[in-house]
Amino acid sequence: MPDPSNNLLVSLYGERHRLCPTPNPALHLVLSFDREIDLIELEQLCDAVGWSRRPLRRVRKALKHSLLCVGLWRHDTRLPKLVGFARCTGDGVVEATVWDVAVHPLYQGAGLGRQLMDYVIAELQTLGVDRVSLFADPHVVGFYEGQGWELEPQLRRCAFWYSP
Amino acid sequence: MPDPSNNLLVSLYGERHRLCPTPNPALHLVLSFDREIDLIELEQLCDAVGWSRRPLRRVRKALKHSLLCVGLWRHDTRLPKLVGFARCTGDGVVEATVWDVAVHPLYQGAGLGRQLMDYVIAELQTLGVDRVSLFADPHVVGFYEGQGWELEPQLRRCAFWYSP
Repeated sequence: MPDPSNNLLVSLYGERHRLCPTPNPALHLVLSFDREIDLIELEQLCDAVGWSRRPLRRVRKALKHSLLCVGLWRHDTRLPKLVGFARCTGDGVVEATVWDVAVHPLYQGAGLGRQLMDYVIAELQTLGVDRVSLFADPHVVGFYEGQGWELEPQLRRCAFWYSP
Repeated sequence: MPDPSNNLLVSLYGERHRLCPTPNPALHLVLSFDREIDLIELEQLCDAVGWSRRPLRRVRKALKHSLLCVGLWRHDTRLPKLVGFARCTGDGVVEATVWDVAVHPLYQGAGLGRQLMDYVIAELQTLGVDRVSLFADPHVVGFYEGQGWELEPQLRRCAFWYSP
Protein backbone atom coordinates (compact mmCIF):
# COMPACT_ATOMS: atom_id res chain seq x y z
CA MET A 1 0.00 0.00 0.00
CA PRO A 2 1.56 3.38 -0.98
CA ASP A 3 1.70 6.22 1.52
CA PRO A 4 -1.80 7.63 1.84
CA SER A 5 -2.21 11.30 0.94
CA ASN A 6 -2.54 13.81 3.73
CA ASN A 7 -5.93 14.94 2.42
CA LEU A 8 -7.25 11.42 2.66
CA LEU A 9 -5.90 11.04 6.20
CA VAL A 10 -7.45 14.34 7.29
CA SER A 11 -10.82 13.31 5.88
CA LEU A 12 -10.70 9.99 7.73
CA TYR A 13 -8.94 10.94 10.98
CA GLY A 14 -9.19 14.72 11.35
CA GLU A 15 -6.63 17.53 11.30
CA ARG A 16 -4.86 16.43 14.46
CA HIS A 17 -4.13 12.84 13.46
CA ARG A 18 -0.61 11.47 13.77
CA LEU A 19 0.94 8.77 11.56
CA CYS A 20 2.83 6.12 13.53
CA PRO A 21 6.04 4.78 12.04
CA THR A 22 6.13 0.98 12.07
CA PRO A 23 8.80 -1.44 10.86
CA ASN A 24 6.40 -2.63 8.12
CA PRO A 25 6.17 -0.08 5.25
CA ALA A 26 2.89 -1.57 4.03
CA LEU A 27 1.22 -1.03 7.38
CA HIS A 28 -0.07 2.46 8.08
CA LEU A 29 -1.19 3.19 11.62
CA VAL A 30 -2.84 6.44 12.60
CA LEU A 31 -3.60 8.03 15.97
CA SER A 32 -6.65 10.26 16.20
CA PHE A 33 -8.74 12.16 18.74
CA ASP A 34 -11.29 13.08 16.15
CA ARG A 35 -12.37 9.91 14.42
CA GLU A 36 -15.40 8.51 16.18
CA ILE A 37 -14.89 5.27 18.12
CA ASP A 38 -17.21 2.47 17.07
CA LEU A 39 -18.44 0.83 20.27
CA ILE A 40 -18.58 -2.68 18.80
CA GLU A 41 -14.99 -2.35 17.59
CA LEU A 42 -13.94 -1.06 21.00
CA GLU A 43 -15.63 -4.06 22.64
CA GLN A 44 -13.75 -6.41 20.30
CA LEU A 45 -10.48 -4.68 21.19
CA CYS A 46 -11.23 -5.01 24.92
CA ASP A 47 -12.09 -8.70 24.40
CA ALA A 48 -8.77 -9.17 22.59
CA VAL A 49 -6.79 -7.73 25.52
CA GLY A 50 -8.84 -9.75 28.02
CA TRP A 51 -10.85 -7.02 29.74
CA SER A 52 -14.27 -7.77 31.15
CA ARG A 53 -17.23 -6.44 29.16
CA ARG A 54 -19.35 -3.48 30.14
CA PRO A 55 -22.85 -2.65 28.89
CA LEU A 56 -22.50 -0.68 25.63
CA ARG A 57 -24.86 2.11 26.72
CA ARG A 58 -22.65 2.75 29.77
CA VAL A 59 -19.50 2.71 27.65
CA ARG A 60 -21.12 5.20 25.24
CA LYS A 61 -21.90 7.55 28.16
CA ALA A 62 -18.44 7.14 29.69
CA LEU A 63 -16.77 8.00 26.38
CA LYS A 64 -19.06 10.96 25.83
CA HIS A 65 -18.10 12.38 29.23
CA SER A 66 -14.38 11.75 28.88
CA LEU A 67 -11.95 14.61 28.46
CA LEU A 68 -10.48 12.90 25.41
CA CYS A 69 -10.70 9.55 23.64
CA VAL A 70 -7.89 8.40 21.37
CA GLY A 71 -8.09 5.65 18.77
CA LEU A 72 -5.18 3.93 17.06
CA TRP A 73 -6.31 2.82 13.59
CA ARG A 74 -4.88 0.45 11.04
CA HIS A 75 -5.40 2.63 8.02
CA ASP A 76 -7.69 1.46 5.27
CA THR A 77 -9.35 3.78 2.77
CA ARG A 78 -12.70 2.05 3.23
CA LEU A 79 -12.71 0.58 6.71
CA PRO A 80 -9.99 1.65 9.18
CA LYS A 81 -9.68 -0.91 11.98
CA LEU A 82 -9.40 0.08 15.64
CA VAL A 83 -6.27 -1.56 17.09
CA GLY A 84 -5.58 0.69 20.07
CA PHE A 85 -7.39 2.96 22.50
CA ALA A 86 -6.94 5.26 25.51
CA ARG A 87 -9.09 7.84 27.22
CA CYS A 88 -8.77 10.53 29.89
CA THR A 89 -11.14 11.95 32.43
CA GLY A 90 -10.47 15.12 34.39
CA ASP A 91 -11.15 18.83 34.55
CA GLY A 92 -8.71 19.52 31.71
CA VAL A 93 -6.96 22.21 33.76
CA VAL A 94 -5.57 20.90 37.03
CA GLU A 95 -6.14 17.14 36.86
CA ALA A 96 -6.34 14.49 34.18
CA THR A 97 -6.47 10.73 34.64
CA VAL A 98 -5.68 8.21 31.91
CA TRP A 99 -7.82 5.05 31.70
CA ASP A 100 -8.27 2.03 29.47
CA VAL A 101 -4.95 2.04 27.58
CA ALA A 102 -5.07 -0.89 25.15
CA VAL A 103 -3.15 -2.06 22.10
CA HIS A 104 -4.40 -5.15 20.25
CA PRO A 105 -2.09 -8.12 21.01
CA LEU A 106 -1.33 -8.57 17.27
CA TYR A 107 0.12 -5.04 17.22
CA GLN A 108 2.03 -5.10 20.50
CA GLY A 109 5.83 -5.00 20.68
CA ALA A 110 6.29 -2.34 17.98
CA GLY A 111 6.34 0.71 20.27
CA LEU A 112 2.73 1.64 19.50
CA GLY A 113 1.72 1.85 23.16
CA ARG A 114 4.44 4.40 23.71
CA GLN A 115 3.37 6.43 20.67
CA LEU A 116 -0.23 6.29 21.89
CA MET A 117 0.82 7.63 25.31
CA ASP A 118 3.01 10.34 23.71
CA TYR A 119 0.02 11.47 21.69
CA VAL A 120 -2.20 11.61 24.79
CA ILE A 121 0.41 13.51 26.83
CA ALA A 122 1.02 15.99 23.99
CA GLU A 123 -2.69 16.83 23.97
CA LEU A 124 -2.78 17.20 27.77
CA GLN A 125 0.22 19.54 27.47
CA THR A 126 -1.67 21.58 24.88
CA LEU A 127 -4.59 21.83 27.31
CA GLY A 128 -2.12 22.95 30.01
CA VAL A 129 -3.08 20.29 32.58
CA ASP A 130 -1.00 20.51 35.80
CA ARG A 131 -0.61 16.81 36.42
CA VAL A 132 -1.72 13.46 35.11
CA SER A 133 -2.47 10.30 37.04
CA LEU A 134 -3.14 6.73 36.03
CA PHE A 135 -3.54 3.29 37.55
CA ALA A 136 -1.84 0.34 35.96
CA ASP A 137 -1.34 -3.36 36.51
CA PRO A 138 1.99 -4.34 38.06
CA HIS A 139 3.25 -6.05 34.89
CA VAL A 140 3.29 -2.75 32.98
CA VAL A 141 5.14 -0.70 35.61
CA GLY A 142 8.30 -0.74 33.45
CA PHE A 143 6.34 0.49 30.44
CA TYR A 144 5.21 3.64 32.25
CA GLU A 145 8.41 4.23 34.21
CA GLY A 146 10.33 4.13 30.92
CA GLN A 147 8.24 7.05 29.71
CA GLY A 148 8.87 9.32 32.68
CA TRP A 149 5.88 8.36 34.81
CA GLU A 150 6.61 8.37 38.51
CA LEU A 151 5.39 5.30 40.40
CA GLU A 152 3.45 6.44 43.44
CA PRO A 153 5.59 5.86 46.51
CA GLN A 154 3.22 4.47 49.16
CA LEU A 155 4.55 6.94 51.66
CA ARG A 156 3.88 10.11 49.70
CA ARG A 157 0.36 10.00 48.36
CA CYS A 158 -1.77 6.95 48.84
CA ALA A 159 -4.26 5.72 46.28
CA PHE A 160 -7.71 4.54 47.36
CA TRP A 161 -10.58 2.74 45.71
CA TYR A 162 -14.22 2.60 46.59
CA SER A 163 -17.11 0.72 45.03
CA PRO A 164 -20.30 2.68 45.68
CA MET B 1 -29.94 30.59 66.37
CA PRO B 2 -33.18 28.59 65.97
CA ASP B 3 -33.41 25.83 63.37
CA PRO B 4 -33.67 27.46 59.96
CA SER B 5 -36.80 26.66 57.95
CA ASN B 6 -36.54 24.19 55.10
CA ASN B 7 -37.75 26.81 52.61
CA LEU B 8 -34.95 29.13 53.62
CA LEU B 9 -32.39 26.33 53.31
CA VAL B 10 -33.68 25.35 49.87
CA SER B 11 -33.46 28.94 48.68
CA LEU B 12 -29.87 29.24 49.90
CA TYR B 13 -28.51 25.75 49.23
CA GLY B 14 -30.83 24.06 46.73
CA GLU B 15 -33.18 21.08 46.94
CA ARG B 16 -30.46 18.52 47.47
CA HIS B 17 -28.79 20.15 50.48
CA ARG B 18 -28.13 18.11 53.63
CA LEU B 19 -28.04 19.47 57.18
CA CYS B 20 -25.07 18.19 59.21
CA PRO B 21 -25.66 17.39 62.87
CA THR B 22 -23.01 18.99 65.11
CA PRO B 23 -22.57 18.88 68.88
CA ASN B 24 -23.34 22.63 69.01
CA PRO B 25 -27.10 23.30 68.59
CA ALA B 26 -26.45 26.96 67.65
CA LEU B 27 -24.21 25.95 64.76
CA HIS B 28 -25.96 24.93 61.53
CA LEU B 29 -23.81 23.35 58.86
CA VAL B 30 -25.14 22.53 55.43
CA LEU B 31 -23.76 20.44 52.56
CA SER B 32 -24.70 21.49 49.05
CA PHE B 33 -23.90 20.65 45.43
CA ASP B 34 -26.01 23.49 44.17
CA ARG B 35 -24.86 26.61 45.96
CA GLU B 36 -22.19 28.31 43.91
CA ILE B 37 -18.65 28.25 45.29
CA ASP B 38 -17.10 31.69 45.71
CA LEU B 39 -13.52 31.40 44.44
CA ILE B 40 -12.11 33.87 46.97
CA GLU B 41 -13.72 31.94 49.83
CA LEU B 42 -12.36 28.70 48.40
CA GLU B 43 -8.88 30.22 48.25
CA GLN B 44 -9.17 31.28 51.90
CA LEU B 45 -10.22 27.75 52.83
CA CYS B 46 -7.25 26.29 50.93
CA ASP B 47 -4.93 28.78 52.68
CA ALA B 48 -6.37 27.71 56.04
CA VAL B 49 -5.62 24.03 55.37
CA GLY B 50 -2.15 24.90 54.06
CA TRP B 51 -2.53 24.14 50.34
CA SER B 52 -0.51 26.00 47.76
CA ARG B 53 -2.39 28.62 45.75
CA ARG B 54 -3.44 28.25 42.15
CA PRO B 55 -4.39 31.03 39.73
CA LEU B 56 -8.10 31.79 40.21
CA ARG B 57 -8.93 31.60 36.49
CA ARG B 58 -7.54 28.07 36.40
CA VAL B 59 -9.47 27.11 39.54
CA ARG B 60 -12.65 28.51 37.97
CA LYS B 61 -12.12 26.38 34.87
CA ALA B 62 -11.26 23.27 36.90
CA LEU B 63 -14.45 23.65 38.98
CA LYS B 64 -16.56 24.25 35.88
CA HIS B 65 -15.27 21.02 34.32
CA SER B 66 -15.64 18.91 37.45
CA LEU B 67 -18.28 16.22 37.70
CA LEU B 68 -19.46 17.70 40.98
CA CYS B 69 -18.36 20.32 43.49
CA VAL B 70 -19.57 20.17 47.08
CA GLY B 71 -19.47 22.99 49.60
CA LEU B 72 -19.90 22.71 53.36
CA TRP B 73 -21.42 25.94 54.63
CA ARG B 74 -21.78 27.45 58.07
CA HIS B 75 -25.34 28.59 57.72
CA ASP B 76 -26.13 32.28 57.94
CA THR B 77 -29.26 33.84 56.47
CA ARG B 78 -27.25 36.65 54.91
CA LEU B 79 -23.77 35.30 54.28
CA PRO B 80 -23.15 31.56 54.58
CA LYS B 81 -19.46 30.86 55.08
CA LEU B 82 -17.62 28.12 53.18
CA VAL B 83 -15.92 25.84 55.71
CA GLY B 84 -15.47 22.66 53.66
CA PHE B 85 -15.07 21.54 50.09
CA ALA B 86 -14.61 18.51 47.83
CA ARG B 87 -14.89 17.90 44.12
CA CYS B 88 -14.90 14.98 41.69
CA THR B 89 -13.76 14.54 38.14
CA GLY B 90 -14.69 11.58 35.96
CA ASP B 91 -17.04 10.35 33.30
CA GLY B 92 -19.89 9.97 35.80
CA VAL B 93 -20.56 6.41 34.65
CA VAL B 94 -17.56 4.14 35.02
CA GLU B 95 -14.97 6.28 36.83
CA ALA B 96 -15.00 9.11 39.34
CA THR B 97 -12.04 10.56 41.20
CA VAL B 98 -12.33 12.69 44.35
CA TRP B 99 -9.97 15.67 44.73
CA ASP B 100 -9.38 18.57 47.10
CA VAL B 101 -11.21 17.34 50.20
CA ALA B 102 -10.87 20.08 52.82
CA VAL B 103 -12.48 21.01 56.13
CA HIS B 104 -11.45 24.27 57.79
CA PRO B 105 -9.21 23.53 60.81
CA LEU B 106 -11.64 25.33 63.15
CA TYR B 107 -14.34 22.83 62.15
CA GLN B 108 -12.27 19.66 62.18
CA GLY B 109 -12.76 16.87 64.70
CA ALA B 110 -16.57 16.92 64.64
CA GLY B 111 -17.09 14.27 61.98
CA LEU B 112 -17.76 16.79 59.22
CA GLY B 113 -15.17 15.31 56.85
CA ARG B 114 -16.96 12.02 57.08
CA GLN B 115 -20.34 13.63 56.44
CA LEU B 116 -18.86 15.47 53.47
CA MET B 117 -17.53 12.21 52.01
CA ASP B 118 -20.86 10.42 52.68
CA TYR B 119 -22.62 13.17 50.76
CA VAL B 120 -20.22 12.86 47.82
CA ILE B 121 -20.48 9.05 47.72
CA ALA B 122 -24.30 9.18 47.92
CA GLU B 123 -24.35 11.40 44.83
CA LEU B 124 -21.91 9.12 42.97
CA GLN B 125 -24.20 6.19 43.87
CA THR B 126 -27.15 8.10 42.44
CA LEU B 127 -25.19 8.63 39.23
CA GLY B 128 -24.42 4.88 39.21
CA VAL B 129 -20.63 5.23 38.98
CA ASP B 130 -18.82 1.84 38.97
CA ARG B 131 -15.86 2.82 41.13
CA VAL B 132 -14.31 5.81 42.79
CA SER B 133 -10.63 6.60 43.26
CA LEU B 134 -8.76 9.22 45.26
CA PHE B 135 -5.25 10.11 46.31
CA ALA B 136 -4.57 11.13 49.88
CA ASP B 137 -1.69 12.08 52.11
CA PRO B 138 -0.40 9.31 54.38
CA HIS B 139 -1.65 10.98 57.58
CA VAL B 140 -5.29 10.61 56.50
CA VAL B 141 -5.11 6.93 55.53
CA GLY B 142 -7.07 6.00 58.67
CA PHE B 143 -9.77 8.54 57.85
CA TYR B 144 -10.51 6.92 54.49
CA GLU B 145 -10.01 3.32 55.60
CA GLY B 146 -12.54 3.91 58.39
CA GLN B 147 -15.12 4.81 55.74
CA GLY B 148 -14.69 1.67 53.64
CA TRP B 149 -12.07 2.94 51.19
CA GLU B 150 -9.58 0.29 50.15
CA LEU B 151 -5.96 1.41 50.28
CA GLU B 152 -4.30 0.53 46.99
CA PRO B 153 -2.06 -2.48 47.54
CA GLN B 154 1.13 -1.76 45.54
CA LEU B 155 0.96 -5.22 44.03
CA ARG B 156 -2.52 -5.01 42.54
CA ARG B 157 -2.86 -1.73 40.70
CA CYS B 158 -0.09 0.81 40.75
CA ALA B 159 -0.68 4.53 40.77
CA PHE B 160 1.42 6.80 38.57
CA TRP B 161 1.93 10.53 38.26
CA TYR B 162 3.20 12.61 35.42
CA SER B 163 3.83 16.33 35.10
CA PRO B 164 3.38 17.30 31.46
